[in-house]
Amino acid sequence: MTTTISHVKTDHYLIPLAQVLEDSMHGVMTGFEVVTARVTDSDGAEGVGYTFTCGVNGGAIADILAREMTPRVIGRDPSLIEAIWKELWWAFHYGGRGGPTVLALSALDMALWDLKAKRADMPLWRLLGGYDARVPCYAGGIDMHLSPEELVAQTHDNIAKGHRAIKMKVGRDLLREDIAKLAALRDAFGPDMPLMADANMKYSVDGAVRAAKAFAQFDLTWFEEPIPPEDPAGHRRVLLEGGIPIASGENLRSVWEFRTAIEGGVTFPEPNVTNCGGVTPFMKIARLAEAFHLPVTSHGAHDITVQLLAACPNRSYLEAHGFGLEKYIESPLQIVDGYAIAPECPGHGVAFDWERLNSLRV
Amino acid sequence: MTTTISHVKTDHYLIPLAQVLEDSMHGVMTGFEVVTARVTDSDGAEGVGYTFTCGVNGGAIADILAREMTPRVIGRDPSLIEAIWKELWWAFHYGGRGGPTVLALSALDMALWDLKAKRADMPLWRLLGGYDARVPCYAGGIDMHLSPEELVAQTHDNIAKGHRAIKMKVGRDLLREDIAKLAALRDAFGPDMPLMADANMKYSVDGAVRAAKAFAQFDLTWFEEPIPPEDPAGHRRVLLEGGIPIASGENLRSVWEFRTAIEGGVTFPEPNVTNCGGVTPFMKIARLAEAFHLPVTSHGAHDITVQLLAACPNRSYLEAHGFGLEKYIESPLQIVDGYAIAPECPGHGVAFDWERLNSLRV
Ligand SMILES: [Mg+2]
Ligand SMILES: [Mg+2]
Repeated sequence: MTTTISHVKTDHYLIPLAQVLEDSMHGVMTGFEVVTARVTDSDGAEGVGYTFTCGVNGGAIADILAREMTPRVIGRDPSLIEAIWKELWWAFHYGGRGGPTVLALSALDMALWDLKAKRADMPLWRLLGGYDARVPCYAGGIDMHLSPEELVAQTHDNIAKGHRAIKMKVGRDLLREDIAKLAALRDAFGPDMPLMADANMKYSVDGAVRAAKAFAQFDLTWFEEPIPPEDPAGHRRVLLEGGIPIASGENLRSVWEFRTAIEGGVTFPEPNVTNCGGVTPFMKIARLAEAFHLPVTSHGAHDITVQLLAACPNRSYLEAHGFGLEKYIESPLQIVDGYAIAPECPGHGVAFDWERLNSLRV
Repeated sequence: MTTTISHVKTDHYLIPLAQVLEDSMHGVMTGFEVVTARVTDSDGAEGVGYTFTCGVNGGAIADILAREMTPRVIGRDPSLIEAIWKELWWAFHYGGRGGPTVLALSALDMALWDLKAKRADMPLWRLLGGYDARVPCYAGGIDMHLSPEELVAQTHDNIAKGHRAIKMKVGRDLLREDIAKLAALRDAFGPDMPLMADANMKYSVDGAVRAAKAFAQFDLTWFEEPIPPEDPAGHRRVLLEGGIPIASGENLRSVWEFRTAIEGGVTFPEPNVTNCGGVTPFMKIARLAEAFHLPVTSHGAHDITVQLLAACPNRSYLEAHGFGLEKYIESPLQIVDGYAIAPECPGHGVAFDWERLNSLRV
């Protein structure tokens, strides 16, 4: 017997950062927004979804969810996620098809998948196919501002927390300062530690080729977002001339944008479940990557994403970086010897501490 | 002496449509939203911008403008539009880079250009370079639901209003029904009337190729949005196999998305000044088209857009379709013998009737 959607509750929070973060294009970040969507069905079962931002666009996301998407899904069968997703995609396409509209859809879609998995009494990763609960992960630092010494110290901390792979930010005005930091990590931790560099779209194509050639000596697993996302031909040049695998995806929306990016030259697609449109497109992007014989990695929301990559035979490293959201989650992700472990509880396994979040309401 | 931005006033309206409209992918439209941005400088001069939607995403746009963009531009020099645009693009990039964020930016950017032209005591089209105030235009019908007879009657009306070129919607479930309507127009108005067909992304690539081949006998000026916007390789197939020029752009954001689309196979780029990011990217898209030896056409907001195409030597037809907004504008666009005439008053020349709009506030 099917149920219907009775309520969707939307909330908008601003989470202060314990430590100010910095990257090449987003500048200094002092807090981030979380917008949650809680879907309740006619049996009283609840699914929880969320999205996040670097501090802007959150009010827009909450408005779309609360005022526009909610009335369109009340009374719908929550098990027909593909039908709901397609309807909302097209209903919001003009003026949507990206931006806050897709982040709102991501949160709602995640809640529907959580609800489905809870009703099936299965962890999401088993519901989605089930590959391996142990997902290799890396610590994603937002650390462009750190000195080589501070970066080495941060990496020791991360290793103590169970990490075995590290991503650092590059894109300082002086390329040699990035190189000094990469060299410091290789000196301190040896040639075998998987190491990635993330430029957050800082470079021109020529600049990215130059940087990739300079970084090649450090045997990087990938070079992330060397250039802005709308340039497939540019990514191809960076890949072929730079000679390092290319990761990109945190600024791409929908499986269709990923297809163009992959055809361009992105060899490590990295969807973010909170901004690509939700679990539904995330899994399609992961399967698309597999069709191209490519790995799939991730961006953000590691608590949820571990469930998705645990269902993918082509899963590469999960990005572990939570902006401190773990303080507001009941069972934060466990990292053991370089692996994140997808939990066995029903649903996606993330339970927010709503009481604690309450004081951070926008 | 430069001024600074003192105020930005944002308003959100829902304009009911006198007549219900329908196309292949947006379905039935009963009203559309207008979000306005009024920028006042420290001398008390005002620039007006707006964006519109098919009825969704407007609350998000207004929230971004009023709550997030306004505090970032207060105190800035309004003449440095490129600086403001770049700063806002990157400040809102994560979670933005499309959707309501770019529509908000479009409205603000338009207001800044209006202000600049008013301060220069020039019509915008002269400020932007000045080519020819007479811009060829066409009547853009949203008429998929009409019968051949109704379409012919609508076209007679449009000719009586001064139009000499016509665009109709295609994408009905039965291709032969579209063909019957195209045939009815050619029968009634002869082979020389410029005629376009707009599918609003309805088709698969194969379906679009089939439709293009079937439409070829009607000598269309262009075939618009045959397929969804994220598929440059698909557009190339439709162009080369279908054998008709391809228009697309109302669902593309930023000059960067247009470049990929043009390289794909779009031969009539059609930016919309209210959703591509504003006057700033619209003019770059127009100049990009020129660099590819392509014409530039337009979507929506004809009152403003006539000013932009009047500054472009490669301007093709302006789309004239106002959703009935002309009822709330003081001097609606004049159409004379197939040409829209860019007015000579300072700024973009659109003055809203704020009193009348007031009752339509959301
Ligand atoms: Mg990144
Ligand atoms: Mg169109």
